[in-house]
Amino acid sequence: MNMVSIIEKKKLGRVLTKEEIEFFVSGAADGSIPDYQLAALLMAIRLNGMNREETTQITLAMTASGDVCDLSSLNGIPVDKHSTGGVGDTTTLVLAPLVAACGVPVAKMSGRGLGHTGGTLDKLESIPGLSVSLSEDAFLKQVQEIGLAVIGQTKNLAPADKTLYALRDVTSTVDSMPLIASSIVSKKLASGAQAIVLDVKTGAGAIMHTMEESIELAQTMVRIGCDAGRRMVALVTDMGEPLGSHVGNALEVKEAIEVLSGSVTGPLLDVSLELGSRMLILSGATESVPEAKEKLLDALRSGRGLKVLRQMISAQGGDPSCCDDVTNLPQAKVILPVPALQNGYIHHMDTIGLGNTAQAMGAGRRTKEDVIDPSVGFVLHKRIGNAVAQGEAIATVYAKDEASAQTAVAAIQQQVFITDEQVPPCKLIHAFVTDESVEKL
Amino acid sequence: MNMVSIIEKKKLGRVLTKEEIEFFVSGAADGSIPDYQLAALLMAIRLNGMNREETTQITLAMTASGDVCDLSSLNGIPVDKHSTGGVGDTTTLVLAPLVAACGVPVAKMSGRGLGHTGGTLDKLESIPGLSVSLSEDAFLKQVQEIGLAVIGQTKNLAPADKTLYALRDVTSTVDSMPLIASSIVSKKLASGAQAIVLDVKTGAGAIMHTMEESIELAQTMVRIGCDAGRRMVALVTDMGEPLGSHVGNALEVKEAIEVLSGSVTGPLLDVSLELGSRMLILSGATESVPEAKEKLLDALRSGRGLKVLRQMISAQGGDPSCCDDVTNLPQAKVILPVPALQNGYIHHMDTIGLGNTAQAMGAGRRTKEDVIDPSVGFVLHKRIGNAVAQGEAIATVYAKDEASAQTAVAAIQQQVFITDEQVPPCKLIHAFVTDESVEKL
Repeated sequence: MNMVSIIEKKKLGRVLTKEEIEFFVSGAADGSIPDYQLAALLMAIRLNGMNREETTQITLAMTASGDVCDLSSLNGIPVDKHSTGGVGDTTTLVLAPLVAACGVPVAKMSGRGLGHTGGTLDKLESIPGLSVSLSEDAFLKQVQEIGLAVIGQTKNLAPADKTLYALRDVTSTVDSMPLIASSIVSKKLASGAQAIVLDVKTGAGAIMHTMEESIELAQTMVRIGCDAGRRMVALVTDMGEPLGSHVGNALEVKEAIEVLSGSVTGPLLDVSLELGSRMLILSGATESVPEAKEKLLDALRSGRGLKVLRQMISAQGGDPSCCDDVTNLPQAKVILPVPALQNGYIHHMDTIGLGNTAQAMGAGRRTKEDVIDPSVGFVLHKRIGNAVAQGEAIATVYAKDEASAQTAVAAIQQQVFITDEQVPPCKLIHAFVTDESVEKL
Repeated sequence: MNMVSIIEKKKLGRVLTKEEIEFFVSGAADGSIPDYQLAALLMAIRLNGMNREETTQITLAMTASGDVCDLSSLNGIPVDKHSTGGVGDTTTLVLAPLVAACGVPVAKMSGRGLGHTGGTLDKLESIPGLSVSLSEDAFLKQVQEIGLAVIGQTKNLAPADKTLYALRDVTSTVDSMPLIASSIVSKKLASGAQAIVLDVKTGAGAIMHTMEESIELAQTMVRIGCDAGRRMVALVTDMGEPLGSHVGNALEVKEAIEVLSGSVTGPLLDVSLELGSRMLILSGATESVPEAKEKLLDALRSGRGLKVLRQMISAQGGDPSCCDDVTNLPQAKVILPVPALQNGYIHHMDTIGLGNTAQAMGAGRRTKEDVIDPSVGFVLHKRIGNAVAQGEAIATVYAKDEASAQTAVAAIQQQVFITDEQVPPCKLIHAFVTDESVEKL
């Protein structure tokens, strides 16, 4: 096997064999293939594509390049959810306790990554005392006992993906459908879940900006999962504006607790129920979406969902009192309103810009070394389509100091667009994608 | 300026600016841009191409990345010739003395490179005592005095091309028209010639196998040269079979001397006269091809051409007696005929295979460290279209030992194809290409 001939084949638009794909993926993992050859191949893949079979093979090869978690000791079919990432996207903290409260084990292993705001791990770590570093045994025991655990990756999952992703980032080859799909799915396969619901975000704040691309990514990933013998479906959900109203780590935990306690409803709950329903169905616990939603809502109304969250926080060493009093979460030093600069209606938002504003405040990392400030972020009081009056607070910023607060206020005023024209509210759920069909919703 | 955004632009098929091209070329030369980013860009260029302006700019940037020779102190317009490389391609040793004998200075600076057989430098070094390492002053003085010098590159010419070429070789991005053209032309521009005739080989033994690609390469290079303010034209000539009958370093010098002494005619002389004519015209010495050929033939018949070669050999420290007695050149130890295996006609040749046979005998380098044996190679006695009888010698091998000779005999028997069908002889000159037109010949 020869790397130059593999590059040449893809350069000419031909289909790579399983053996050729395994050769370069294992070479990426063990460092035996130089970066410049991998970079040339990645560009050839970006420009000439990969078919379904190749995309499945690269995913399986990346999964096999490292450790694979074994969740087979758990009772029932462990189910996971993965979001392609958005702003104010706290569905995990809402749906995981609800799904677990319905008797379906949720064993979630998350990566940390970079982003506008922290990932689920960073949000959980804003709860005083909580640790996301559990041994695999402790992790499985916790899922067995309370039905839910969310921890950081302890093992060496898909190291080939780490190498390839780092190269893609600096060679302008991130935006390749088979490479995006295989990068995401390889890690999910390695983390051991047998049933996975994907939440593919679409719109201004998402990895894919158009509906067509978002559905294609959803299909590509679902097909890989099914070809790999897992149960996998995807929902395409909206990221034209932040999903929850709260953006920032402790702020998002607060919002999740408020939703689970029944005091807050809205898009975050709606999308969590949609995703959670598909998780219940995929695990075999229910048959239909209405039935599944009813089960989840029952878990919410009865307080069983919040109870599972409380149990999980305790089990992972955190202070569960925040579930009863959200002011026990880290509090920001400076709180300022963001006044609307004019009368009108919220027309659209620069959602990525809003994410960057939160990141600049300290809610997210720009480099791996950055330390997150759990207390900072902002809460939006308006959604697209809402009327606003000049001077009315469209948001509130929670900042570490006055300067940071002022900067964030000015930024948000530029990132939330107010016009005279009223537009309808954003549709939340756009499509349901299985291996066999795309159902527009 | 940011390398990732330059890669992205070319990935999307957009046109790079002069500044962007200068940025990555100078980064390739000084090592400030990592190989993996250059590799990704090279693949994007290979797949999305470069337009005329970009191709000229990358060439100029590569030329400017190193030293540039100044030949302006020479009287007249120094003229050069460059071949894209073939087997038995000894035109330089025939035409350079003839052109110089017509009063047009030929100041030729050659690279050494790898290849089936040695380059012009290696051929010259098979002449006992001859050195191709002259200082620039000595080089210019020799051209001034006898009209001709052929030396190795002393300066650091186009270092960016060295970096990029080495990367292309290992990333399957050699076969890119703008990259091939800019690589060749940047070094010719840096070597200082003001008028350059390109000999673009076409066919089985050439860099470009089809006429269409060969003409495109010729046009691409000529346009760069003209855009860079040089006089440049190209001939597309045949490499379906070796041009001269002699393949190997001393053997090719012998053939050139025999042509210059008037004892041998044929395709090598014919192509040398065509190329030499264009050199005379480009330098302004004559107006028409028939007139130029007559001048060159007069230089040949009068012995002035061979005299210039003799002067050059002496000036560069070599023993000129080989011009009077070719047996003063290095002689091979083992000489064996290559008998035809059947009756018939020479139908075609595996010309690259023949080159590889010469290389395996010791006539060319596989790695930079290989030492060339000047005495070895072979002489073909038949050309495509010629009749042969079984057992008749189609070639003679000149080898360093018996085993090497036997291996070469067997290889050549496989590489020269004999059939019952008679085919016409190869056309030698296919097209004449200027900045403005392509004339099929």
